[in-house]
Amino acid sequence: MVAAALKNKTIHTTPFFLSCDWGTSSFRLRLVASDTGSVITAIKDKTGIKEIYKRWTAYGGELSRIDFYQSFLMQKVEELKSTSPVAVDYPPVILSGMASSSIGIKELAYAPLPFELDDPNLNIEMVAATDRFPCDLYLVSGLCSSDDVMRGEETELLGLHSTLNISEGLFLLAGTHSKHVVVEDRTVISFKTYMTGELFDIISSQSILSASVAEDMDSAAAPGRDFKKGVEEAQQKNLLHSLFGIRARDLLRDTSDKGSNYDFLSGLLIGTELKEMKPAARTPIILWGSSRLQQYYAAALDVLGRKVIRPEIKEEEEITSLGQRSILRQINTNN
Amino acid sequence: MVAAALKNKTIHTTPFFLSCDWGTSSFRLRLVASDTGSVITAIKDKTGIKEIYKRWTAYGGELSRIDFYQSFLMQKVEELKSTSPVAVDYPPVILSGMASSSIGIKELAYAPLPFELDDPNLNIEMVAATDRFPCDLYLVSGLCSSDDVMRGEETELLGLHSTLNISEGLFLLAGTHSKHVVVEDRTVISFKTYMTGELFDIISSQSILSASVAEDMDSAAAPGRDFKKGVEEAQQKNLLHSLFGIRARDLLRDTSDKGSNYDFLSGLLIGTELKEMKPAARTPIILWGSSRLQQYYAAALDVLGRKVIRPEIKEEEEITSLGQRSILRQINTNN
Repeated sequence: MVAAALKNKTIHTTPFFLSCDWGTSSFRLRLVASDTGSVITAIKDKTGIKEIYKRWTAYGGELSRIDFYQSFLMQKVEELKSTSPVAVDYPPVILSGMASSSIGIKELAYAPLPFELDDPNLNIEMVAATDRFPCDLYLVSGLCSSDDVMRGEETELLGLHSTLNISEGLFLLAGTHSKHVVVEDRTVISFKTYMTGELFDIISSQSILSASVAEDMDSAAAPGRDFKKGVEEAQQKNLLHSLFGIRARDLLRDTSDKGSNYDFLSGLLIGTELKEMKPAARTPIILWGSSRLQQYYAAALDVLGRKVIRPEIKEEEEITSLGQRSILRQINTNN
Repeated sequence: MVAAALKNKTIHTTPFFLSCDWGTSSFRLRLVASDTGSVITAIKDKTGIKEIYKRWTAYGGELSRIDFYQSFLMQKVEELKSTSPVAVDYPPVILSGMASSSIGIKELAYAPLPFELDDPNLNIEMVAATDRFPCDLYLVSGLCSSDDVMRGEETELLGLHSTLNISEGLFLLAGTHSKHVVVEDRTVISFKTYMTGELFDIISSQSILSASVAEDMDSAAAPGRDFKKGVEEAQQKNLLHSLFGIRARDLLRDTSDKGSNYDFLSGLLIGTELKEMKPAARTPIILWGSSRLQQYYAAALDVLGRKVIRPEIKEEEEITSLGQRSILRQINTNN
């Protein structure tokens, strides 16, 4: 797939590459050393793909869609180069995540399962360097099963795989839309997405419960004392009833402890996501996500009697950049 | 309870009473014939308790809280009287629902379970008629268990009981916050609230699924063809994953059928609420709610193998007014 897509294209074996994470509502660009995977310098910005898409649809000028997106990207490349401690020319850019979605630079079809982690068959499209944008740009697709999709997490998986080299397990990627990815024989054979994080956000801000929950700012970014109760209740009771229970307790008590309601609601939703986890199962669970989410999920899995592997990556590394490094190697190997 | 609260108060045995439903976001007032329960005339308005509370907190004048709420109510009483085909003076007002909540005219504590339908022990407070507000006003409390609450549905239950005279069953009151009420020996012994309707509203309008669901305006207000699939999926799969499935199908198909996604989402959430319903259970289910919601819930219960009783009330009657008529009788009996 990679070989076919890139046939007769210029391929770089390059000491550096630019790793770009362009998500729905954030932008990150990093200069990465190709041999070690270390991030040399990085910038971030709140100009997500959604914002750029909005600007593009409002734009009445003569730039093509790709040129329009690249003109933003170019400003960021120059900004990054100006902060770099090492002199670099214009290294290739590897771009994964929402950049290849319908609101991205160019929509790429999802690659289908199975997905071999040692020989990733992602759809990759190169946009060759021009005077205007002097870096070769590699757009990377997501993955799909018959009934689920991901864009970006496949790159994180490749990064985790390059660090851990685990041949089988359940990779749990915690996030707004959390993913449970089943890997057997170094191959993704299935995955499921859970809307847990987004549901937490809208329930805690838009529903009647918004008056009853608030994050306890004094405590560390770790689950509080009612989190475990929420996880346990999710195993026993009906979610839609347990949710209203938060409101009812608030009305029946004289005082409301919004902090513990926040913990309980987190536990209830994460506990619901993890309801099918069997305590006796032997499949290792490899947990990834922000350090905060990792703490919440590890605590919930502990309540359910499951141990987790929490990969450590070196301080100078970043999981998406490590995955993109695997993709770059694969591109080089196949050409 | 009633007797104690109303000791030494003027009690009416009156040919008419005013039945008031003052909910969070709606206001209804009806003139009702005390003997038959028939609604003579009715008005409605979008000025819910929440709006009046907002006006009251912004109000800097000299009226007390009760006077402030009553001044709005008085305008509506005069409006109703002007539309009445029969001449009435100032009949007593029975007011249940959110009017007795913390944002209502005056907060009344919930009455605890058990709740005898033939001898309702609600907390009732009379505000005696004045020159400014010449109707006696009876404020009616809600009910609570150790971990759940209702305000307003207890009056609907009394209305259903006065119509059906069923001594035991599961009363399912479908609404934004649906209630499952267990009645044994003509007594409410427990109930559970489910946040189903509210969750449907916020998921379909505020989440990533908002781009994928839309009500099919061409079809009748009845469940469409994917509703049943949603109910069935809720029995088998994890809700948080099934929700994302709606988005994934949208991305994987060329076209999106927002109407069937709407049906599926309805089925998924109602099916989750009803997950503990056993097909073989013999307890009769008495279903109440808007005619639209009754159709959805009856269809879901049919998928689950449960038959329902759907009470018919006469066209000129209204369930809350019938319940308030029982409360008025009880007040008269006890005094």
